[in-house]
Amino acid sequence: MKRTGKPLLDTLNGTVPDRPPVWFMRQAGRYLPEYRALRSQAGSFMDLCLDPVRAAEVTLQPIRRYAMDGAILFSDILIVPHGLGIAVAFRQGEGPVLTPTGPDDPLPEFAAGRFSARIAPILETVRRVKAALPPAVTLIGFAGAPWTVATYMVEGGSSRDFARTKDWAFRAPERFDRLIDRLVDATIHYLRAQADAGAEALQIFDSWAGALPPDAFERWSTAPTARIVTAIRDSHPDVPVIGFPRGAGASIPSYASGSGVDAVGLDTAVPLEWARSAMPDVCLQGNLDPRWLVAGGSGLDAQVRRIRSAMAGHPFVFNLGHGIVPETPPEHVARAVAVLRGEA
Amino acid sequence: MKRTGKPLLDTLNGTVPDRPPVWFMRQAGRYLPEYRALRSQAGSFMDLCLDPVRAAEVTLQPIRRYAMDGAILFSDILIVPHGLGIAVAFRQGEGPVLTPTGPDDPLPEFAAGRFSARIAPILETVRRVKAALPPAVTLIGFAGAPWTVATYMVEGGSSRDFARTKDWAFRAPERFDRLIDRLVDATIHYLRAQADAGAEALQIFDSWAGALPPDAFERWSTAPTARIVTAIRDSHPDVPVIGFPRGAGASIPSYASGSGVDAVGLDTAVPLEWARSAMPDVCLQGNLDPRWLVAGGSGLDAQVRRIRSAMAGHPFVFNLGHGIVPETPPEHVARAVAVLRGEA
Repeated sequence: MKRTGKPLLDTLNGTVPDRPPVWFMRQAGRYLPEYRALRSQAGSFMDLCLDPVRAAEVTLQPIRRYAMDGAILFSDILIVPHGLGIAVAFRQGEGPVLTPTGPDDPLPEFAAGRFSARIAPILETVRRVKAALPPAVTLIGFAGAPWTVATYMVEGGSSRDFARTKDWAFRAPERFDRLIDRLVDATIHYLRAQADAGAEALQIFDSWAGALPPDAFERWSTAPTARIVTAIRDSHPDVPVIGFPRGAGASIPSYASGSGVDAVGLDTAVPLEWARSAMPDVCLQGNLDPRWLVAGGSGLDAQVRRIRSAMAGHPFVFNLGHGIVPETPPEHVARAVAVLRGEA
Repeated sequence: MKRTGKPLLDTLNGTVPDRPPVWFMRQAGRYLPEYRALRSQAGSFMDLCLDPVRAAEVTLQPIRRYAMDGAILFSDILIVPHGLGIAVAFRQGEGPVLTPTGPDDPLPEFAAGRFSARIAPILETVRRVKAALPPAVTLIGFAGAPWTVATYMVEGGSSRDFARTKDWAFRAPERFDRLIDRLVDATIHYLRAQADAGAEALQIFDSWAGALPPDAFERWSTAPTARIVTAIRDSHPDVPVIGFPRGAGASIPSYASGSGVDAVGLDTAVPLEWARSAMPDVCLQGNLDPRWLVAGGSGLDAQVRRIRSAMAGHPFVFNLGHGIVPETPPEHVARAVAVLRGEA
């Protein structure tokens, strides 16, 4: 494969790195004082996502602070519903709020022109970040996976049990297929647009994959992801795709082979030795528990070294198994990166 | 091994059944009208758990309705903290509420005499159920696993992220070991007392096992469970122990071998083909998604047949991958049992 000189991108393409490249899910966010300062000037969270100047600045903050190998676009997994014309609000302490949709409601319409207009600010953010990034840093775009995005649309927000979504999927699976189909179409369009705007790798977040039994996981997570990966590979063969099927446990290897993703993000519960043995040919990414970044101390150092050592010799990207939490001291993030790089 | 004539007990002991015995987690509960009628006469949920006459009646309700192969004691996983003298309240729609404890607080004291006095009503329930059960039905006692019980004690109730518990465990692991040790001691005492009172099998619910990274899972779930299993085997060699490490994914086989449980409960996300291949010598139990009991219809029938067929030839107990939810139509439960038994 062709080397790019970008450690993260090369690793996602299957190169075994001398030391693992690193980025952290939610590396741009509330735990950073410079984020909170900027956040207080913006309106709603959605306003911030759709403000290219501020969203680009937020994306770059952790790159300046930690020299991460990857910059992940500051945005949200609910941009696809937004692009489909669905109102998405974020209320303080409540998470996202949408009008719930069900099997008897009209399906959302994917109209490329209108969708493009609504996501245009996100693409402007991508271009601004790309222009500002140091050349060795890989710009990562992303989208929510269709299943995960569907749960928010059907539940009207976050959920503990996904009751409405599963009831729809189990009772009217063909109709649910059609909702997923629309989301696949929109997600392909959205990820391709991010790649056109300068994203060099793409991550698909299936945050609620673990809620699905194996047959449903295959149908509504692995298979739709495969269609997205095939489409991206067709239009953007140099842009690797990272799939993150959180909570999928023993189904992760079949997700990896079935979806064809270039790299698999591992959640905190996944044993690394098992993962590398079950997926010898796939780049892996993960999986420090973000609570270790809160705890800090010698325990954090030991965990970073354990993960690095467990994955030595494998194409591996150091990351968390879940996003950084707001109460994380930024100096613990710096420490983890320094230990990983052998600088501490 | 010795046959008992009780299909569930024989299967838990490793016999391959002609057709899988069946019981469902939360088979006694809010979805049953006869439960709701009785519940409305009792005071708090905890009052009901500590009322031997009513708790025995509730335990027996699903046996009468469905002729389940197992009767699980109607009780709660927070009886161990109750036995330790900790106030446990259940507030409507909120789940359990306890005074949170942390690393700087005194550890709970396990005093066998006081503990026995506080759990005495539960044991009376066990005796009453045992006396009333048809001879072919196996009486299952249970407890929460130390890790899962600890999360409620440290968080003061339910949690999404287990932030306080993990912060304690990661920052002061030796002190957290001591909390787990106390819970192991109390759990051994409690489960032995249930077996003495007539429980013929015991399940250890580690509902939040999936929140732990693999090394922490080994230390605070598998190893403490192994101590409990060893103690039960020593005092009650004929009482099989079922471990249910919910969400543990690819770590389940190491939990099975490391803890020495007789049977492993599988959550909804576990692929059965993988589980039987990875744990060829262990009785397995699971793992229908309880939302299928809400959905019903031909989909439910197909799922029951799929699971039965996937586990044919293995020691297997048909169950859910999580508890029955309140909105379940009781006739769907009857249908699932009939399909499993080839009566529909």
